[in-house]
Amino acid sequence: MTEQESHVEIPQNHPRRVSLLTRAKLTEGVRQGITSLDGLLAHGRGEAFDYLLGERTRDFAARAIEAAAALFLVAKRPVISVNGNTAVLVPQELAALSEILDSPLEVNLFHASREREVRIHDHLLSHGARQVLLPEREFVLPSLQSNRRFVNGRGIYQSDVIFVPLEDGDRCEALIQSGRKVITIDLNPLSRTARTASITIVDNIVRALPLLVDRAQALASESRSTLDNLLKSYDNGSTLREAEIALREVVHAAGSAP
Amino acid sequence: MTEQESHVEIPQNHPRRVSLLTRAKLTEGVRQGITSLDGLLAHGRGEAFDYLLGERTRDFAARAIEAAAALFLVAKRPVISVNGNTAVLVPQELAALSEILDSPLEVNLFHASREREVRIHDHLLSHGARQVLLPEREFVLPSLQSNRRFVNGRGIYQSDVIFVPLEDGDRCEALIQSGRKVITIDLNPLSRTARTASITIVDNIVRALPLLVDRAQALASESRSTLDNLLKSYDNGSTLREAEIALREVVHAAGSAP
Repeated sequence: MTEQESHVEIPQNHPRRVSLLTRAKLTEGVRQGITSLDGLLAHGRGEAFDYLLGERTRDFAARAIEAAAALFLVAKRPVISVNGNTAVLVPQELAALSEILDSPLEVNLFHASREREVRIHDHLLSHGARQVLLPEREFVLPSLQSNRRFVNGRGIYQSDVIFVPLEDGDRCEALIQSGRKVITIDLNPLSRTARTASITIVDNIVRALPLLVDRAQALASESRSTLDNLLKSYDNGSTLREAEIALREVVHAAGSAP
Repeated sequence: MTEQESHVEIPQNHPRRVSLLTRAKLTEGVRQGITSLDGLLAHGRGEAFDYLLGERTRDFAARAIEAAAALFLVAKRPVISVNGNTAVLVPQELAALSEILDSPLEVNLFHASREREVRIHDHLLSHGARQVLLPEREFVLPSLQSNRRFVNGRGIYQSDVIFVPLEDGDRCEALIQSGRKVITIDLNPLSRTARTASITIVDNIVRALPLLVDRAQALASESRSTLDNLLKSYDNGSTLREAEIALREVVHAAGSAP
């Protein structure tokens, strides 16, 4: 069986079908040695925020996705960082984005192991990716202590814009401090990652990535000045404020239900 | 090494030490075949709500814990239902509560397997528990489809009050419909379980269980009328409303931070 199939049978009309399929992909990812156990815990946290935000792509997320596509297209050397969760959840979309932007995918793990890195590398190739880089011990990002500091010399090391979906706060801060622009996907608008990144997409990655691929494709033929104007008019502070308001309002609405 | 020890070294002064130790217990539980992968996802969801609630036992939770202790003590046949997450997170406290109430622990799993049931049984015994029951195919709870419908004839089957921490909504509803009183622990005050249970403790189980053991011990010497009055003055609707307000306020406060 392929990596995309799952052992779990979920009825087509089940109200939580997407959420259950997503969980099944991640637990299958653990069995395949791609996803870490901590990745499951992290996904659970994201699920709770997604639930509070109504499990749909809100306007503030759509605007961030549009700006992210523009920033990728004006970047000189964009790189897409991939971890165990993103690899099992959206491998085809990562491959498509890499193709449109002519940007490599680079495996970077919090809980690093060469075996898992190679499995993710192979998993991405089998889903259509062409450029997948692995960390190299000779290239180090300053101000990071964890294994994440090792990067690829032709990838993150020389990147100017980096996409780090589902990321930890330390790494996002270190990348920003290094002068790079960071695009992230994070369902918690209050997290350090969300508050530090240049562009924060507060949405579930399984909904956001197809939209991001679509917007990158659509904007790829636009002029540089159109993209620049799009970026000039984007305000990540507004995105975060609107996401926080949405979170509060959903809690409020649920709380006043009979 | 014992089940309580973990492979992970976390500095004593780490600001998220308790949360990281809790995660490490669960991932170790998976490696031991006690916790399910879905249990990790569920814990992650709980973590997000705990984070929003400030990771401390709020007044509404302390009141629910007091009422829960009273309800256990007036019950004729209280039973404590145990799943993979509760078994690895608070085995000693479950054993202590079982002792104080003279109430059996009963293993009941959503993702049932006899092997995992027996592992949990043995894990609880090795942490001081004396009465640990397993499901029997001859005893079935009506209006439940999943494996959870099978119960022990000397345990849940004949219980009047049942403690089901970290539970799914279907099971909580079925137990209430069967005329039993249900005490639960659930960090999401908006969940079906939280809204259906007789007493809902909106708190992290690793903080709530030691407090519950303490209150049960303290109230064990009180008269029946004191316990009855305590229960009469407890209102689970207020608990849920206050928990919802707390959730909203924390989101609000975090959102207005600079």
